[in-house]
Amino acid sequence: MPQAALRGGIDLGGTKIQAIIADKDNNVLGQARRPTPTTGGPPDVIAALIEALEEAAEAASVAPDALTGIGVGAPGGIDEATGSLANAANLPDWRDPVPVAQLLGDRFGATVKLGNDVTVATQAEFTLGAAREFDSLLGVFWGTGVGGGIILDGRVWNGRGTSGEIGHIPVRHHGIRCPCGRHGCMEAYAGRRAMEQRAREAVDDGQHTDLFKIMEEKGRDRLTSGIWARAIDRGDELAESLIADAVEALGTAVASACNVLDPEAIVIGGGLGVRFGDPYARRIQDAMMPHLFHDDDPPVIRVAELGDLGGALGAALLVA
Amino acid sequence: MPQAALRGGIDLGGTKIQAIIADKDNNVLGQARRPTPTTGGPPDVIAALIEALEEAAEAASVAPDALTGIGVGAPGGIDEATGSLANAANLPDWRDPVPVAQLLGDRFGATVKLGNDVTVATQAEFTLGAAREFDSLLGVFWGTGVGGGIILDGRVWNGRGTSGEIGHIPVRHHGIRCPCGRHGCMEAYAGRRAMEQRAREAVDDGQHTDLFKIMEEKGRDRLTSGIWARAIDRGDELAESLIADAVEALGTAVASACNVLDPEAIVIGGGLGVRFGDPYARRIQDAMMPHLFHDDDPPVIRVAELGDLGGALGAALLVA
Repeated sequence: MPQAALRGGIDLGGTKIQAIIADKDNNVLGQARRPTPTTGGPPDVIAALIEALEEAAEAASVAPDALTGIGVGAPGGIDEATGSLANAANLPDWRDPVPVAQLLGDRFGATVKLGNDVTVATQAEFTLGAAREFDSLLGVFWGTGVGGGIILDGRVWNGRGTSGEIGHIPVRHHGIRCPCGRHGCMEAYAGRRAMEQRAREAVDDGQHTDLFKIMEEKGRDRLTSGIWARAIDRGDELAESLIADAVEALGTAVASACNVLDPEAIVIGGGLGVRFGDPYARRIQDAMMPHLFHDDDPPVIRVAELGDLGGALGAALLVA
Repeated sequence: MPQAALRGGIDLGGTKIQAIIADKDNNVLGQARRPTPTTGGPPDVIAALIEALEEAAEAASVAPDALTGIGVGAPGGIDEATGSLANAANLPDWRDPVPVAQLLGDRFGATVKLGNDVTVATQAEFTLGAAREFDSLLGVFWGTGVGGGIILDGRVWNGRGTSGEIGHIPVRHHGIRCPCGRHGCMEAYAGRRAMEQRAREAVDDGQHTDLFKIMEEKGRDRLTSGIWARAIDRGDELAESLIADAVEALGTAVASACNVLDPEAIVIGGGLGVRFGDPYARRIQDAMMPHLFHDDDPPVIRVAELGDLGGALGAALLVA
């Protein structure tokens, strides 16, 4: 018996692809995750998207061609009208536009829509997660980089396609270089990639840290959120110092964004945001207060509720 | 013969009250200006509002009771539903809510609406002025303080009543004290009041400047926009140095706001913004570029077109 309004949602990240099958009430019926191909270019990534969604459908005991719609959240330059993706810096050899919606639509016989990864994750927290009772929201996704999603009066605000770039709000005059090439951006202090770079430089300067020892113990090749959390638990001073810088930079930039938007709520998500949870959301709020104009009634600050599935659920909302 | 849809608009500022009479096409039929009372509390300010609007009506050859609506742009805490104003720091003894709409409505027999002064001035530039052809706009009002107005998809965004506070975006870590009490705010470097304070401190420290000599020549008791412009024309090094700091602070904070909003256009208004005009709008744009994320296609930046009447025209739009 065909089920009504089954949808697929895919969160296409630089590290992993998360796919889900959602029913009309946004219950997750099945899911699958696989690493994002690091070679092979767009064809291999498209193949991985298809496989992940097929696997999620199988987990949900749903025929792949039963999906009425598929949403994809992705980084990079999205043309919503054509459903193409270009200049995805974290995906292999992905510069020219690729008609992702058409390629997935041909395979599954469904309507496919693309959305910005941070925006759809913000929409998911707004509609289904930590910010359900609010009308305006700033989503703060603290991970490899730091992205922001904006919902005002219940509607996503995308600007001219590049809104919510809170990671690139300058927080230090003549500050350190950000992975984006600018100086003093919040992400230069708070992004996981930038924090790892700072840790490596500190080690080169002779400072002690257990961060890279923990990385080896865990068999990883980068400082994941879990490694940072482990180091903090062990009282690693360098890790605590870099995280303190990150929290202060986050507080400053999020306060700046709030001085502009004055939203009802802030949801902190992303790998680091979810891993560090409520105690760090409170530390970020404390770091905001000296710079927050509306400080007699600060926005409510919460940790993302949907965790790893938020991006894929938000993607599925694109075709709800 | 009664004229259709004549409206009054009043810009209630800390220094002056500007009133206009506008017809249905927003032509200004008459105007009047008077200083804002510095003593006497709300009753004297209300009396001055009434006199200014009566004088504007007389200049327009319109009977005061012919107005169908009156809009008032004001600083402070506005309750749009009740039309009351509270906590207007720049007005004498104005803390408790005063029913401004009711008091003016009783006098003129017209509908009266209150709006934030910066927001209505932004609306005026959006509807009638420098940003007519755009759908999204950041208004930057560079004067005694620095305020921001936001229009997205053609609609004002007020947040929870305190949006657009771009003057209090932090631009320097542990920066100088702002008139608001916080540290490192853009307004601490760029607001006219704060710049005057910096100039006085520099003189106390033995630095030379013609700023205060020009002030005496002009018979003023504060460093007006015109005095700053005159000093710059004379090559006054302290004035140029403080203005350079102001431009850099403006560029940093406006870029931060653009990284959040990604608007189509920016309009620079306010006493200093209008006085310094296009060359300084370009300097502000140059100062934005190192921090602007969407730098391959920066927002259009223009100087406000409506000049001193923008606030009053925007107020009249509240009842259009």
